[in-house]
Amino acid sequence: MSENEQRSAVSVIGLGQMGTRLAQAFLAAGHATAVWNRTAAKADALVAQGAVRAETAEAAITASPLVVVCLPDYATALELLGPVATSLRGRTLVNLTSGTPEEAARMAGWAAGHGADYLDGAAMSGTRLVGRPEALFVFSGSPETFAAHRWVLASLGNATHLGADPALAPVYDTALFGLAWGALAGFYHSAALVGASGVDPSTFAAVATGHMPFVVSLMAEHARQIGDGRFPDDDGTVEVHAAAMRHLLDTSRAGGIGTDVPQLFSDLLDRAATAGHAASGIASVIETIAAGERNA
Amino acid sequence: MSENEQRSAVSVIGLGQMGTRLAQAFLAAGHATAVWNRTAAKADALVAQGAVRAETAEAAITASPLVVVCLPDYATALELLGPVATSLRGRTLVNLTSGTPEEAARMAGWAAGHGADYLDGAAMSGTRLVGRPEALFVFSGSPETFAAHRWVLASLGNATHLGADPALAPVYDTALFGLAWGALAGFYHSAALVGASGVDPSTFAAVATGHMPFVVSLMAEHARQIGDGRFPDDDGTVEVHAAAMRHLLDTSRAGGIGTDVPQLFSDLLDRAATAGHAASGIASVIETIAAGERNA
Repeated sequence: MSENEQRSAVSVIGLGQMGTRLAQAFLAAGHATAVWNRTAAKADALVAQGAVRAETAEAAITASPLVVVCLPDYATALELLGPVATSLRGRTLVNLTSGTPEEAARMAGWAAGHGADYLDGAAMSGTRLVGRPEALFVFSGSPETFAAHRWVLASLGNATHLGADPALAPVYDTALFGLAWGALAGFYHSAALVGASGVDPSTFAAVATGHMPFVVSLMAEHARQIGDGRFPDDDGTVEVHAAAMRHLLDTSRAGGIGTDVPQLFSDLLDRAATAGHAASGIASVIETIAAGERNA
Repeated sequence: MSENEQRSAVSVIGLGQMGTRLAQAFLAAGHATAVWNRTAAKADALVAQGAVRAETAEAAITASPLVVVCLPDYATALELLGPVATSLRGRTLVNLTSGTPEEAARMAGWAAGHGADYLDGAAMSGTRLVGRPEALFVFSGSPETFAAHRWVLASLGNATHLGADPALAPVYDTALFGLAWGALAGFYHSAALVGASGVDPSTFAAVATGHMPFVVSLMAEHARQIGDGRFPDDDGTVEVHAAAMRHLLDTSRAGGIGTDVPQLFSDLLDRAATAGHAASGIASVIETIAAGERNA
């Protein structure tokens, strides 16, 4: 049997914590998976789990039509792939390395220059959930390329295509990180607040997580309002929320906990009111955020 | 047929926007519902929908074993119920009026003094979703009282009992309001950020809402860590998130949008690092929030 016949479905280059989880998810979904890492020993456990060890980066690339790369940064990716770039011709390179929109655009151009299809991507849900449907993976680049590999990429979790511009994956990566931090900062503050009344954090979390489907439904609704540039007051006006936020500030002070988190929300609401949105719906605060320095 | 035989399952006093929706949800679930409002005309539409009009507050109370009150504030509630307090004996008063923990505790004592069972409560999901399973209603007070009326209260949505202390409902009300604002502020910032790259808000919301189940799973996990007072780094260290947050700040500046939202998160992370949590998991930022002024 010649080496060309021993093909895998997918190759994973870069076997750090995330790369290892990616390879395991491909294996768990039944895809023949080749693996390579600069420090070869990092492949040992995966080989024991059924992965095919590639002896070189070039061997890893030639083993599969789909090459998934997850490295510490784009400079490392180019350093490893540069010398073996010609072997990428006719294959698809999926780059899950974290970076900037500019790096993604540059890498897409580099791949095209070597005759490879390219998707940039980002793993949004840490390493723990990889392979489960709630693990979000975002990809950007040619829709045809994504469609061709969607079935294999879906082994990783909720594989979502963002659009043709390869820079979209790092843009969403950064934005979704901010979204997650908003929810977590709100959660930490509220857990501290109920904690001051003796409520156990897990008891609170059980109720809080039951409230989140409603909050998430507001995001979809408010996105429509933002798109329309019209902010009806169905979920309360800026003025009413500002009053409730003053109550949250008072309660936080009375409980002896920090006030930075509600103070930010209060400032956003006050700024929206000053900008003429006192009687508008709360999604109007996006205008004071989007205006940035022009409004400060 | 004497008036005593014409009993309803539940009475609703206070037919503002929320009270009206409560009565509609009870009716929709098939419960005979009596209604009363100081301005009687506000009951007309509900009567047309099948509600029984009570001519006085006292008639509304005596009509049903369960009396649900939703008024602008506790002062109004006491003003309306005070003159007819004796009719509450042996009945259950459920008060969904918004107020403070102190007001809830005082009202519970007042109701007990008149021989009534009492639950304080809060409607967490606005008026739009009332009657749907994702509409969270929290209640606090005697578990037996809640158990006795759970079936009727479940007509309103996700009826959740918080504990025996009547003050818990307003405590959770305020905390969950802060939680929602965290998620929304994060969403508005991230929508503004992708907007600077030309991404439509609803397109972003579709991906963002797909990311939220993961974020919500972190709340449950981090609550356990907070309870244990130990912060493993499975979801990344404070240091790693601080670096990613600096990237979000840079990207926000480059996009010309405001930086207040990520600046708050950056400050929280920096303070956690300064407090010795650089290599801890991110849930350790709760300690700098909970410490409040002592740490500022």
